[in-house]
Amino acid sequence: MAVQTVASTTDTAASPVDLGPAAALSCRECGHRVPLGPVFACQECFGPLEIAYDFSAHDTEELRKRIEAGPANIWRYAPLLPVPADVATKPNLNPGWTKLVKADNLARELGVTGGLFVKDDSGNPTHSFKDRVVAQALEAARAFGFTTLSCSSTGNLAGAVGAAAARAGFRSCVFIPHDLEQGKVVMAAVYGGELVGIEGNYDDVNRFCSELIGDPAGEGWGFVNVNLRPYYAEGSKTLAYEICEQLGWRLPDQIVVPIASGSQLTKIDKGLQELIGLGLVEDRPYKIFGAQAEGCSPVSTAYKAGHDVVRPQKPNTIAKSLAIGNPADGPYVLDIARRTGGAVEDVTDEQVVDAIKLLARTEGIFAETAGGVTVGVTRKLIENGLLDPAKTTVVLNTGDGLKTLDAVAGTGLTATIRPTLDSFREAGLA
Amino acid sequence: MAVQTVASTTDTAASPVDLGPAAALSCRECGHRVPLGPVFACQECFGPLEIAYDFSAHDTEELRKRIEAGPANIWRYAPLLPVPADVATKPNLNPGWTKLVKADNLARELGVTGGLFVKDDSGNPTHSFKDRVVAQALEAARAFGFTTLSCSSTGNLAGAVGAAAARAGFRSCVFIPHDLEQGKVVMAAVYGGELVGIEGNYDDVNRFCSELIGDPAGEGWGFVNVNLRPYYAEGSKTLAYEICEQLGWRLPDQIVVPIASGSQLTKIDKGLQELIGLGLVEDRPYKIFGAQAEGCSPVSTAYKAGHDVVRPQKPNTIAKSLAIGNPADGPYVLDIARRTGGAVEDVTDEQVVDAIKLLARTEGIFAETAGGVTVGVTRKLIENGLLDPAKTTVVLNTGDGLKTLDAVAGTGLTATIRPTLDSFREAGLA
Ligand SMILES: [Zn+2]
Ligand SMILES: [Zn+2]
Repeated sequence: MAVQTVASTTDTAASPVDLGPAAALSCRECGHRVPLGPVFACQECFGPLEIAYDFSAHDTEELRKRIEAGPANIWRYAPLLPVPADVATKPNLNPGWTKLVKADNLARELGVTGGLFVKDDSGNPTHSFKDRVVAQALEAARAFGFTTLSCSSTGNLAGAVGAAAARAGFRSCVFIPHDLEQGKVVMAAVYGGELVGIEGNYDDVNRFCSELIGDPAGEGWGFVNVNLRPYYAEGSKTLAYEICEQLGWRLPDQIVVPIASGSQLTKIDKGLQELIGLGLVEDRPYKIFGAQAEGCSPVSTAYKAGHDVVRPQKPNTIAKSLAIGNPADGPYVLDIARRTGGAVEDVTDEQVVDAIKLLARTEGIFAETAGGVTVGVTRKLIENGLLDPAKTTVVLNTGDGLKTLDAVAGTGLTATIRPTLDSFREAGLA
Repeated sequence: MAVQTVASTTDTAASPVDLGPAAALSCRECGHRVPLGPVFACQECFGPLEIAYDFSAHDTEELRKRIEAGPANIWRYAPLLPVPADVATKPNLNPGWTKLVKADNLARELGVTGGLFVKDDSGNPTHSFKDRVVAQALEAARAFGFTTLSCSSTGNLAGAVGAAAARAGFRSCVFIPHDLEQGKVVMAAVYGGELVGIEGNYDDVNRFCSELIGDPAGEGWGFVNVNLRPYYAEGSKTLAYEICEQLGWRLPDQIVVPIASGSQLTKIDKGLQELIGLGLVEDRPYKIFGAQAEGCSPVSTAYKAGHDVVRPQKPNTIAKSLAIGNPADGPYVLDIARRTGGAVEDVTDEQVVDAIKLLARTEGIFAETAGGVTVGVTRKLIENGLLDPAKTTVVLNTGDGLKTLDAVAGTGLTATIRPTLDSFREAGLA
C-alpha cells in the first residue's frame, strides 16, 4: 500500500482551509475525492471518507530531524497530520508522547523473549487515547469555524471533549444516556460544558446526534466522531509514529491493538505504511493483531469463521470502552489482520480482570479494561502459537484503571491486623 | 542560603553506597554529619537529617547540556539527586517531566497578567507527585539492600509505593487504616503487594510502623517516608528543577505550593537554591507561598499569628492528601515564606471545590483536592494583595481529580431531554 498523495493541485486549490499536509478527502471504497470539509460519507457510494495527504515536499532526513526537535507531544508529527503548521502554538491539551514501557517482568510471565513493550496511553491529559483523536477534531473544528464541540459518549470521549473544549475556549455539548453511573457523569461534567442526558440508551443518543447534525439547530457544531470523523480518526496514527520513533525508528514485529469501531487499528496500519513510504523506517513485515472482549467480539468471530463481513452483536462485557456491537471499520480490520499475518482474538471478562492484575503487579501499570483485553489477548495468542514470543511485540494500553475501578472491585486487603507486632507476626507477614 | 557541599572527602569515603552526588546525611538543626544510611533523625539533637551533596565537579554549561540531553523524566536531573549515575537503566516508573501548562484562560479569570502556569503533576505514572519521591526512596532501598518497600498511607502514597515496587521487583507491604473507602483500597491493592488493614486510625497505623522499624521483623524493610525519608524527600526538588527548565532556565517570580508535612515546599526552595548555586538560573528574588485547607491549617494559622511554632490541629477537610495536623516541616515553611516575601494562606472546602471546577473549565485540567487548594489560595492571595498578578506565577497541581471524585460529586447533568429535536429546543440548548 502506497502513501496517498494528491493527483493534482486543483484539489488543494479547492480547499479554503489550512490543515497542513491534508489535501482532500478521499472515499475509502471508491476513491472519489472531495475538498476538505466537515463531511464523513462519500456522495457516490456512502463509503467512509478519509484524509488524503500531500507528503511530496518531505526530505526524509530533514523530516526526521524536524520531528526529533519537536515538542514532547503529538505535534512533533504535525507535518504528517491534518493540522496547520503552527498547531503547537494554539491552546490545546498537547496529548501524546506517552511512555513506551519495556515490560521485562510481564515478558517473563508471558514467555516473550524478543522484547515486550507496553504503549501506555493512560499518560494522556484525560488518561485515555481519546485525547489524541479529539485534538485532531479540535483543529478541524477551528479550521471550519465551528464554535461548539460535541459528541455522544458513555465514557472516555466525554471527558476528552469537555477538557479539550474548555482549554481551547470552545463551547462543548456532550450527549450521554441519562442513567449513566454517577462517577462517569462527574468525570465528564467537571469541565463545565453542557452535559445533556438523553432519555434512552446509547443507540438513542447516537440517533439523536445524527438528527441534530442535519438540523439548523446543529449549525456550527463539530461532532468529533461524526462530521469531524475523518480528521478525528487520524489521531490514532500518532500511536504508530510514537511507537516506531521510541523503538529507534524501527517497526515492531508485532502489535496488539484493541478493537472498538476498529478505526484505531486501521489508522495504526496507515501510520506504519506512511512511515515506510516516507523512508523513516525500514520496510519490513509487521503483524497487526486485534483484541476484543468475548462479550463483544463481532470482529474476532468473523475472523475465526473466515468471513469478510462482520455480523453485529449485542455487547455484554465489562470492557465498556470497546463495547461497539457493529464496528464500522470491522471489515478493514479483518483485511489488515489477514494481510499482515496477524489475527483477531478475544478473551472472557474474567481473563480481562486477570490481565489487568497481571500488568499491574508486573509493571506497576494500572490499565483500563481495554488494556486488560490487549494483555489478555496477547497471552492467549502466545498460547495459540499465533504470536511469536521471539519477536519484538508492542501491546497497547489505551486507558486508565482509575476509570474502570469496578472491574477490579474484588481486589482488597491481603490481611487485617491489630496495630501490634504480635498481630503482625500472627498474620505471617514478618 | 548556599548549596550544601561536603567539607572534606572523608565523609564520602565513609559511605559504602553509591548514591551519586549524595555525600552524607546532615542534621538540619545542628549540622551534625553521618554517613549515608537508612536513618532519619540526628543522634545528637533528634533533628531531621537531610542529604548533603558534593556538586563541586559540575561545570555549569556542561551540566545544562547533559540535563537537556537526558530522558524526559526526573532522571535528567540524576547528577543533582541521591541516585547512582546509571539510575535510568534500572526498572522504575520514570516519573516527572510533567507538563507546565501556560494557563491563559485561568489567568484572565484571576486577573494575572504576568504569566500564569500550572505545573500539572497528575501526569505522573500513578497520577500524583508521590511518584517523584517514591522513585528516590526506591533507589535508596536498592543501595541499602532492602527487599521490601513499605509505607503507611491513606491515599496517593499507597499506590505510588505499590506500583514502584511491582515494576522494580521489590516486595511491597503497605499499611492503611482497615476502614478506608473501597475505591482507595482497590487503587492500592491492584498492584498485587501486601496491603494490610490496621484496626485503628491513621495515627495508630503510623505508631505501628515506627514499632516495626525498631523490631527485627522490620529488618530489610524500607519505609519510604520513615527510614528512607531523607532520600524520599529529595524527590520534590525535581519540581523546582523542571519548572525552571520549562520556563527556559529561569526562576518563577512566585510559586504556590500545597502544604501537607511541609516537606515539598522546603525541598522546592532547596532545589531553587541549588540551581542558583550551580549557575543554572540567574539569582533573582522569588516568593514561595504555602497553601492549606482551612480544615487543616496549622501552618497558615501560625503564619497569620506571627508565630514560629506550629500548633497541631485535628484535620477536618475534603483535602485529605494535605490533612496532616502536625506538619513536621511547618517551622521551616514559615521561615521560607517569610524569608522570600511569600505568605501562607488557606481556603474553605467550598472554595476548594470552586477552584477545582474553575481549573477544569478554564484549562481542561481535573485536579485533586490539593490542586483546588493551591488554585483557591492563589485567587485569595491576589484578592489580599499578597500575590502580584503582574509577575510570573506557577501554581502546583500535585494530584488527579479521578482520585477525589467525591469532592465534586455535586457536578452533574446540565439538562435531561428526550431524544428529539423538539425536546432539545425546549431545553434551550440550540
Ligand atoms: Zn465512494
Ligand atoms: Zn542534630
